[in-house]
Amino acid sequence: MLDERLPLFPITTTVVTTEHGGELAVDGQPIAGLAARFGTPLYLFDQATLDDAAARYRAALALHYPGPGGVTYAGKALLNLAVAQWVQQQGFRLDCTGAGELAIAAAADLSPDQLLVHGVNKSAEDLAAAVAQAGVIVVDNRTELARLAGLAAAGQPLPDLWLRLRPGMAVETHAYRQTGQDDSKFGFAPAEIEEAVAFGLDRGLPVTGLHFHQGSQFRDPAPLGPALDLTLDLCQTLAAAHGWHPAVICPGGGWGVAYHEDDLPQPDIESYIAFVARRLAEGCAARGLPLPHLQVEPGRSLVARAGVAVYRIGAVKQTARRRWLLIDGGLADNPRPALYGARYSALPVTHPDRAVTTPAWLAGPYCESGDVLIEALPLPQMAAGELLAVPASGAYHLSMGSNYNGARKPAVVWLRQGQAHLIQRRETLADLLARDLPLWGRE
Amino acid sequence: MLDERLPLFPITTTVVTTEHGGELAVDGQPIAGLAARFGTPLYLFDQATLDDAAARYRAALALHYPGPGGVTYAGKALLNLAVAQWVQQQGFRLDCTGAGELAIAAAADLSPDQLLVHGVNKSAEDLAAAVAQAGVIVVDNRTELARLAGLAAAGQPLPDLWLRLRPGMAVETHAYRQTGQDDSKFGFAPAEIEEAVAFGLDRGLPVTGLHFHQGSQFRDPAPLGPALDLTLDLCQTLAAAHGWHPAVICPGGGWGVAYHEDDLPQPDIESYIAFVARRLAEGCAARGLPLPHLQVEPGRSLVARAGVAVYRIGAVKQTARRRWLLIDGGLADNPRPALYGARYSALPVTHPDRAVTTPAWLAGPYCESGDVLIEALPLPQMAAGELLAVPASGAYHLSMGSNYNGARKPAVVWLRQGQAHLIQRRETLADLLARDLPLWGRE
Repeated sequence: MLDERLPLFPITTTVVTTEHGGELAVDGQPIAGLAARFGTPLYLFDQATLDDAAARYRAALALHYPGPGGVTYAGKALLNLAVAQWVQQQGFRLDCTGAGELAIAAAADLSPDQLLVHGVNKSAEDLAAAVAQAGVIVVDNRTELARLAGLAAAGQPLPDLWLRLRPGMAVETHAYRQTGQDDSKFGFAPAEIEEAVAFGLDRGLPVTGLHFHQGSQFRDPAPLGPALDLTLDLCQTLAAAHGWHPAVICPGGGWGVAYHEDDLPQPDIESYIAFVARRLAEGCAARGLPLPHLQVEPGRSLVARAGVAVYRIGAVKQTARRRWLLIDGGLADNPRPALYGARYSALPVTHPDRAVTTPAWLAGPYCESGDVLIEALPLPQMAAGELLAVPASGAYHLSMGSNYNGARKPAVVWLRQGQAHLIQRRETLADLLARDLPLWGRE
Repeated sequence: MLDERLPLFPITTTVVTTEHGGELAVDGQPIAGLAARFGTPLYLFDQATLDDAAARYRAALALHYPGPGGVTYAGKALLNLAVAQWVQQQGFRLDCTGAGELAIAAAADLSPDQLLVHGVNKSAEDLAAAVAQAGVIVVDNRTELARLAGLAAAGQPLPDLWLRLRPGMAVETHAYRQTGQDDSKFGFAPAEIEEAVAFGLDRGLPVTGLHFHQGSQFRDPAPLGPALDLTLDLCQTLAAAHGWHPAVICPGGGWGVAYHEDDLPQPDIESYIAFVARRLAEGCAARGLPLPHLQVEPGRSLVARAGVAVYRIGAVKQTARRRWLLIDGGLADNPRPALYGARYSALPVTHPDRAVTTPAWLAGPYCESGDVLIEALPLPQMAAGELLAVPASGAYHLSMGSNYNGARKPAVVWLRQGQAHLIQRRETLADLLARDLPLWGRE
């Protein structure tokens, strides 16, 4: 049984090891020591894993795409000051949704050429922040384009505008993660793109790119092919009608990662990029179109594997047919199992090589039956007080986290070259009350 | 079509009206004015609706239960300083899950006799706070009971302990809201209750009550019957074996509310309480048991209807088969549609009596296809800039809310006798960065 579980390691960050006498470690730093120092639940981020994913994307683009290329980091997966600083150092674009994420980007001093703003319904505040800070706005719809035209007419210089195409086809993933289908809320229909380009050209707006996004956490790039073909057919039409070529094409959509042994093998970054790059280059050649800049949005595949969540078992309980390990986090820091039925894996932090016994159900402390982090996971006997590590915890946990049941958001620690840096402090009791005003008294 | 929608009003707070010249109002205060003053998305809470629900529970208990009774407010549904103050004023118990919610209760000066602590995996900090502050701890499992025994042995006075029974039967509701089934993570199995009572008596622990909880948002009290019978059978056994009677029986579980026209009629508070009260009183009489104090936990039915969420439409979009109204909130302030498939209703704030046209899809601004607040809702033609009000928004929205996509948590306003009181300020951009520490620079 254990041998079957060893493939778990490819799920987790590339640097989880069992050195240090049977202790799990990340970046060579024993997890137990980090949990003792920073408390639990704890989120660890391994910079080497982030750097490795970034390098793979850069190398794959350079190898497979004959034109210029670039990478966008999806702020919605995980964003804080430290992550924004890492994105800046990588030279990637940071995708921000609205004024909130732009404020985090500003704190990290990202320049306009590294900032891109997405959003299906950008508020006036979002648009103002985007115009002031970002080098690119991905325009979702006519209302937004008309507002931007209004700003331009009033003398406001605009950043580059990329139009978001709704290709009418989605990738194979959970319905909540499909974004490109015909009746998705996102983007312009193909016929509307033509209108929007004409509208933009008429008004001298800097419409310079086309973007589409078909869904995230997919592992087969094939559905990107027809969407890229559709985009290039549209480019032909636009070139003929308006002499307009997009300087940038951005086939968005987050490449998947393995969360559980059953997801292995790990979706391969190089074959994903090779597919997109070749399809785009060949499609341009076949249509006599100039090669655009290829901007990819690899989503969670940049950051998910760099994150490890660490929980402590508070109690063990046997019910009729289940062994429960009750841990100190769950729904509040990781709503993905409840939202998407996402399946995770976990390992004991101390002596992970112990013999597996019966399956265990890992549940959090929250008053909600949906607060079950992992169901039926083969694990050894474990006792209250022991630690569990959940790999692939880097994306869409903290960014979707809540204060349910008065939970305080966990501490987040960045691991680099044997050093641990606190990058987000644990919330305090005072934080829970910071926005509250009394109904009476205490005036 | 419109006539069919007028029954929407019973869904919403009892005091939504269309006075003021075709404007929706709560507590006589036009929503449009409140939105202009406090911004959107905005959460309004109507004290009259809260007071009404509280009075109904008190009256039903007095009418139908021959013994003493009381009401517990479920902090997990919604808790902030003002709500805690309201609970204190009502003389209800406040159910807190752990140290976080206890800190909010402390700020409202709730005394121990008004505080009860739940939780399936209370941490050492949670238990310490509970022992220091609360009059009742609902003990979930053996590990917790042993820890409390350890504290008592070390000379720590303990509050009353109620044991949480897992009756092995659930109410009919969403699986995530079922809590009482055989393999739920919550509570002691019936046989374990006997052990726990014996353990407590041996050590002189103040074990004084029995609690069970079968799930929330249910509208048929019938499944509570067998669970009450099981509890009373257990009481007979415990009386015979140990001479022990629970001073309190708490058949927990949150009574439902209507979220949508299809949920009407509104689940009736009086028939729920009448059922529980009679079954308990008759069950005690039949078994020759003394009448315990009956403590009810009516959950969301106290607060859900008092809340109205207000959103502004930012853009209108037509896709192949759908009319989209893109609003400025959604998944981040109300994850219930994505988590539970919960269905809501909504009304235009201005001239809600306009003729309904095609169904509309209300979606939030977040980069997530699951961010659709309401699907296929009959609504009139509406334009960008207009406001929509979503009734029954008082429970499990804000308490489960997130900062997804850099969303800032909304302002919360309490309405009472024609006055509007801000009870939770809107989050700011600075709040989003408050816990962040840089990786480099800015030392």
